[in-house]
Amino acid sequence: MKVGEFLFDCLKNEGISEIFGVPGDYNFSLLDTLEADGALNFVACRNELNAGYAADGYARVKGIGALITTFGVGELSACNAIAGAYSESVPIIHLVGGPKSMMQRQHKLMHHTLLDGNFDTFKKVYEQITCYAAAITPENAGVEIPNAIAKARETKKPVYLTIPTDVVTANMMSRAEHPQRKKTDRASLKEAVRMIRARLEVAEHPVLLPDVYAMHYGLGQQVEELAEKMNIPMVTMMMGKGVCNENLPNYAGFYCGKLSSDGAARQLVESSDCVLAFGAVWNDYNTGLFTDQINPLAVINVMPDHVQIGKTVYPNIIIDDLVDAFPADGHSWTLPQQSPFPFDSQDATDDALTAKNYYPQFQAMLRKRDIVVADAGTFAWGMAEVRLKKEVTYIAQGGWGAIGYGLPAAFGACVANPNRRVLLFTGEGSLQINVQELSSMLDNGCKPIIFVLNNKGYTIEKYINTVDNTEYNNIPNWDYHKLSEVFKQDAFTVQVRTNNELRQAIADAEKKCAKQLCIIEMITDPMDAPKIIHKMHQTVLEMENKSEGLLTLFTGKERI
Amino acid sequence: MKVGEFLFDCLKNEGISEIFGVPGDYNFSLLDTLEADGALNFVACRNELNAGYAADGYARVKGIGALITTFGVGELSACNAIAGAYSESVPIIHLVGGPKSMMQRQHKLMHHTLLDGNFDTFKKVYEQITCYAAAITPENAGVEIPNAIAKARETKKPVYLTIPTDVVTANMMSRAEHPQRKKTDRASLKEAVRMIRARLEVAEHPVLLPDVYAMHYGLGQQVEELAEKMNIPMVTMMMGKGVCNENLPNYAGFYCGKLSSDGAARQLVESSDCVLAFGAVWNDYNTGLFTDQINPLAVINVMPDHVQIGKTVYPNIIIDDLVDAFPADGHSWTLPQQSPFPFDSQDATDDALTAKNYYPQFQAMLRKRDIVVADAGTFAWGMAEVRLKKEVTYIAQGGWGAIGYGLPAAFGACVANPNRRVLLFTGEGSLQINVQELSSMLDNGCKPIIFVLNNKGYTIEKYINTVDNTEYNNIPNWDYHKLSEVFKQDAFTVQVRTNNELRQAIADAEKKCAKQLCIIEMITDPMDAPKIIHKMHQTVLEMENKSEGLLTLFTGKERI
Repeated sequence: MKVGEFLFDCLKNEGISEIFGVPGDYNFSLLDTLEADGALNFVACRNELNAGYAADGYARVKGIGALITTFGVGELSACNAIAGAYSESVPIIHLVGGPKSMMQRQHKLMHHTLLDGNFDTFKKVYEQITCYAAAITPENAGVEIPNAIAKARETKKPVYLTIPTDVVTANMMSRAEHPQRKKTDRASLKEAVRMIRARLEVAEHPVLLPDVYAMHYGLGQQVEELAEKMNIPMVTMMMGKGVCNENLPNYAGFYCGKLSSDGAARQLVESSDCVLAFGAVWNDYNTGLFTDQINPLAVINVMPDHVQIGKTVYPNIIIDDLVDAFPADGHSWTLPQQSPFPFDSQDATDDALTAKNYYPQFQAMLRKRDIVVADAGTFAWGMAEVRLKKEVTYIAQGGWGAIGYGLPAAFGACVANPNRRVLLFTGEGSLQINVQELSSMLDNGCKPIIFVLNNKGYTIEKYINTVDNTEYNNIPNWDYHKLSEVFKQDAFTVQVRTNNELRQAIADAEKKCAKQLCIIEMITDPMDAPKIIHKMHQTVLEMENKSEGLLTLFTGKERI
Repeated sequence: MKVGEFLFDCLKNEGISEIFGVPGDYNFSLLDTLEADGALNFVACRNELNAGYAADGYARVKGIGALITTFGVGELSACNAIAGAYSESVPIIHLVGGPKSMMQRQHKLMHHTLLDGNFDTFKKVYEQITCYAAAITPENAGVEIPNAIAKARETKKPVYLTIPTDVVTANMMSRAEHPQRKKTDRASLKEAVRMIRARLEVAEHPVLLPDVYAMHYGLGQQVEELAEKMNIPMVTMMMGKGVCNENLPNYAGFYCGKLSSDGAARQLVESSDCVLAFGAVWNDYNTGLFTDQINPLAVINVMPDHVQIGKTVYPNIIIDDLVDAFPADGHSWTLPQQSPFPFDSQDATDDALTAKNYYPQFQAMLRKRDIVVADAGTFAWGMAEVRLKKEVTYIAQGGWGAIGYGLPAAFGACVANPNRRVLLFTGEGSLQINVQELSSMLDNGCKPIIFVLNNKGYTIEKYINTVDNTEYNNIPNWDYHKLSEVFKQDAFTVQVRTNNELRQAIADAEKKCAKQLCIIEMITDPMDAPKIIHKMHQTVLEMENKSEGLLTLFTGKERI
């Protein structure tokens, strides 16, 4: 068996049927092997950053994704996507085709290298931003390939495999080994469960806070069941948005410190004596720029490989095992009053389009099993408050926050499941980063509904920088609805400026999206923004006034 | 004085007046400081990869360039551009705005990080692909900033400075120091000059071979003068294309092993008993996939910090000093017959557009002081044979070879000198990588003439992969001349399919380019290619037949 065939067999065993990438001479042998395989499809992207994002979007729908780039010039363009997948805990297998082994051994000066005879430079780059990086040989393929894939599965982080062009077609010189899976320490688990039970027994106001790891370990439904069984309110955060059905009676809103949604969420979390967090990360976005006021001693945080209760860590517990063993029996609380629905549907008017009137329309159009993609910028924040129906996949970078992620991620999601409806919410600043991937979407027959918020610049940046009138936050104005003409493909495109026009456009798109990709360009005032962005602005100003220094998180005004 | 002000003063002292980049919250304090400086302009790009390429193109015109990105999400998108600048020896100062120092010291989980509390991860990435990387503090700014700039100047490689947002506006806490410049070892220089003189005294067929370092150290004119003084023929290679006036009587063509231009170049170099190379790199592209047959003992190679004569190295000699001290007196040879002009101008016909008829038209239109940009792909190879007039700046990646480099590099070149004519030759596969930068060009009033070769795929890849009908080398077909409509800017765009149509389009563009950006889309047969690509294909096939293994450089067919 050839190394390349073995590699692709391993990927197929993981349920991967499409691999994203860009061809280049060093990955021809990978692509030729892939083309010869009937069960795998190569999905060509317009550039490598986009291919990385597409693999990420695909992984968020199918559980794992893969990417093929070429040495140097290709792989280095995907660094941002792979680091983002690391930060967001999305498993991607990044395959790089490299120069022939003999050339590497002889330190030849090859194209797509730094011309210094080193061939491990780019692997060293990727060692910084993946959880596993290996250079494949016929001798180590049987061990390294399964190990890398297992590591990606176990940690939900990206891995990196660089494979010389000749190794792909060489015979395997080692047997395939099954990597050891990490196992739960049963004693540690027993202790943790005992302590959680003890905490629950005395808890008066418990609250469930499932976050990013619960989502990426596929535990959303189990957490929902716990919530229902124990009658505990459930609150979501920025990074883990999408983990649960937000129309359950238990759902109590969005927690983000001072930026939390109106209603009970903030009070529920901050006054709770038992915060049952599942895979929560306490980063700046999740905590509303560190304005959270949660009692750390009240927190039980179930993490991928350990549980933390207050200050105590119970190590070596696989998250799935803890969730299976969770002591949910024998408790039941009274649910608090339901939080008000953040976005009430409004009557159509000829009013100019504003966050106040368009979010209710988004809320109203969401369906069960939709895939909702929100790009960084005002949409990532505004959409965090929209309530998702059950079995929705929500795709956003709640911590990495790279603008331009949305469109290619939506492409990956469309490829991952052509039968689910994909809604993309992106800003024009994001879209300009990687607009070319729209061509790949059209070329592959993808039919998402794409909302492009055209507010003529990086609006969110204008809100978080306290320096006024920053010229650099303005961007060129494009005719977004003419893009499909350039890409020579049929699409439904419309430009809307009022509440009414958006309503009509959504109604039209919902009909047409069965057969066409739809682009709705929303023209708004440059400073229009949802309530949460205004809260953020207010928070930044308050910090500045109190010289708490978080201001300089953004503007650098405080002197150190 | 504030650290940021000192930084920008240092850049201005280097002659930098424009800095490319993309805004992001962590670089606001850099951009605010820059906007407050009357003498510097921030040139916003559509994404960071493009900004890096633009800084590279700018540096090739002005000697040095600069780039501002934001932490993580920004800087990691520019890796390919910076590694390319390293490989190609182009000095770029890459400035990254980072999270506030206090956040870094406290290992806070900030957005745009891997959420592991580490803030040196991305610096470690850049340590692999720059010659100098430093994290700036108020205490070290006076030393590190001048050091980094000096290192970029000295080595012609990119450097990396990451600066927390608050440090930019903090007072300097160290005095600015003048870095020690490396000095030539006079004894070593004397020995080298003595040996070169001795070699020249017995040389019967000397040939000059100026390459990439001669070009980037700005020594082209001095090498031309040596050629004229000594009456020696001069040959160029792939990486150093553009180093000299190719219309001098001494110019004898393009050397590239078996891919050399027709005429005397190959024979002159390979039969020479004294190859006077200035900054030559023996990489695969320069040597025609290692098909060069130069006698290594006959080579004198003047490198940035040493001279190699045969097998002997004379260390610690700054290239400028060697060129100044070059023993050119007292020798004169007889120039061989001039090589035939590779592209004779042809009469206009209604023939379909082919490499055979369009290169002569490019040749005919080139002028003194043009900036000619050739993107990777067939154009980079085909244009290598076109003869450049004097004072032309030729911009291409002769070793790194990243597709998509051309358009943003041309943007950088336009910004570097708005008074020089910029001609961009790019393929549609390249253009699709980063088409959005056309918007920045239009927005900044740039008026290059852009030739887009639309051959419906990665044609060069089809020639170097010996597997036929590789579906992955085809790409979507766009209407390139409609791009300016999307970007809402006036431009002259035309699509040509015949020799005659191209002739007319060039004539029109030459009139209109004073006032408009011009795009000429050239539609050709997918397999049309210049002679040099056919030679390359032939070479690849021969290697395969002889099992010399170089085939697997590309296709991986040979078993290891």
